[in-house]
Amino acid sequence: MAKLAIGVDLGGTDIKAGVVDDAGRILSRIKRPTEPERGRRAVIENIAEAAEAARTEADVPWRRIAGVGLGSPGVFEMPRGLVRNSPNIRCLEGHELRQPVQRALNRKGLTVTLDNDANVAAYAETWIGAGKEKQTLALFTLGTGIGGGLVLNGEVWRGAWGAAAELGHQIVRPDEPARASGTPGALEDVASATALVGSLKEAVKARKRTRLAKRVRAGEKITARDIFDAAKAGDALCLKLVNEAGKFLGIGVTNMLHILNVELAVFAGGMTAAGSILLKPIREEVRKRAFPLSRRHVKILFSKLGNDAGLIGAAGLALHTRAGRRGTR
Amino acid sequence: MAKLAIGVDLGGTDIKAGVVDDAGRILSRIKRPTEPERGRRAVIENIAEAAEAARTEADVPWRRIAGVGLGSPGVFEMPRGLVRNSPNIRCLEGHELRQPVQRALNRKGLTVTLDNDANVAAYAETWIGAGKEKQTLALFTLGTGIGGGLVLNGEVWRGAWGAAAELGHQIVRPDEPARASGTPGALEDVASATALVGSLKEAVKARKRTRLAKRVRAGEKITARDIFDAAKAGDALCLKLVNEAGKFLGIGVTNMLHILNVELAVFAGGMTAAGSILLKPIREEVRKRAFPLSRRHVKILFSKLGNDAGLIGAAGLALHTRAGRRGTR
Repeated sequence: MAKLAIGVDLGGTDIKAGVVDDAGRILSRIKRPTEPERGRRAVIENIAEAAEAARTEADVPWRRIAGVGLGSPGVFEMPRGLVRNSPNIRCLEGHELRQPVQRALNRKGLTVTLDNDANVAAYAETWIGAGKEKQTLALFTLGTGIGGGLVLNGEVWRGAWGAAAELGHQIVRPDEPARASGTPGALEDVASATALVGSLKEAVKARKRTRLAKRVRAGEKITARDIFDAAKAGDALCLKLVNEAGKFLGIGVTNMLHILNVELAVFAGGMTAAGSILLKPIREEVRKRAFPLSRRHVKILFSKLGNDAGLIGAAGLALHTRAGRRGTR
Repeated sequence: MAKLAIGVDLGGTDIKAGVVDDAGRILSRIKRPTEPERGRRAVIENIAEAAEAARTEADVPWRRIAGVGLGSPGVFEMPRGLVRNSPNIRCLEGHELRQPVQRALNRKGLTVTLDNDANVAAYAETWIGAGKEKQTLALFTLGTGIGGGLVLNGEVWRGAWGAAAELGHQIVRPDEPARASGTPGALEDVASATALVGSLKEAVKARKRTRLAKRVRAGEKITARDIFDAAKAGDALCLKLVNEAGKFLGIGVTNMLHILNVELAVFAGGMTAAGSILLKPIREEVRKRAFPLSRRHVKILFSKLGNDAGLIGAAGLALHTRAGRRGTR
């Protein structure tokens, strides 16, 4: 019988959970509210209930569940797994997360595995996604901010005290002041969805022409998606902004080649809806800056698993860490 | 009896070799010319002869030598160990290096281990140097160029096809054109000894005041050492240039924290003669840009092994890769 694990993808609004088999197939999928406003105990209770609901939904007994994997945003200080930073679920900060969830599940012998959401997504992509058969991969998650996950030689790389793979905090514009990310000059502050929308607003303020100008001036909510759509429809300013973001993402990929010599860079998150209009300038920049050996071999792709990467990767880590086949370090 | 290995440090001018014991002590030390102008076969012969001379000098029989480690500048395409790039010994390019040296030594059962010179130096620093007891370290070699070595979880990180740890090729000035390093905006082009001297010459051309102006205008050879000495003696321009180089090296360290979360950054090579005048701006920049958790824990130090790091690290890799205690990946 196939080995099974429960994967839990903890977000600021929702908890997604599902039973996943050892081929990475999702057998059930449920969603529960996170309710961070109700405090830490409630969040932990909700996680345990989501795991239980996923199991019930898949109609499998607990004895078939090899472990529970939990992917969560934030920085966890290892080896204890203390939550150092969790911007969307502040109530978790300063406390351990893995042990309390394990206690709330209250199943003897059942282990909970915890990792950063981008790490588990990176793991999922090497397991059954865009990086299948690859051992060494950098994942960039493009959304409000830019997160990252690294898989080196088939294992999630967490670094000395759990703060590695913050790929959006690479410094690519050293002379810029500190902005939203807190790291002066960070990639996140020039190439995230937030940064893209910010650049558009600045350009409109500077009276640059764009079909989005009227909406910006009217104070309408503009998303990165709007900018991609305008760029695809021929808006020159929007196309320039997308190219600029892509250029800096390409610099980020080049750094991953020069520093780590990854085989593959994968982009995930909302911004990948842009499609080739974003992928093209990324690839062009890598062609300009990377060593011939690297730029010839490297693959630069979008995530294959999309929103399921967190759930699948969390379950995968739970399955493989227990089995000792693949681990985290 | 202590286990022994021969470490060989291959340079463009000289081959240094020595017998090293399993505590990292150097039992003998010899030097031979590399003679790249005589071609590939001569270089390989010289390496084998240097290893033999080191053994004779230490007065130990071959049966006590567990292996020969070879550290060499350049990029080696793994797993074959094909020399992709060797700027100072061009005749080696496009050929394998490990196997021919092993054949030239002609000792049955004796294995030659090959790695990049900065990788072996990084390994030496974690073994018995500045990073003793540390598992995760980034080494920057500061000289004509900027090289690098990474040790992750006690093992040398070479990347997918052997081109990793090119820490001087991090992009820190994206809008600069390509210079000596070949990578537009590379750290090497703003913070190496060559870059420092170049910045001084530009400043003198722009009529900036410095006590070195006369020597520059007279076409005298100026070294990074001269700039450090002038800075220490109170030359404001030279101090500014050293601070600027230190700032960018600090950005390089911050990237190592954000991407890899290393425990330790070590600087090696000729420029470390500068001492605290260079170390101070590096540390200040990290304090400005890194996460609180990282900047509190990280150590930023100069190499403890200096010019011996290559020889010791090469021997160490030969000893430990054989014994399976520590390896490369």
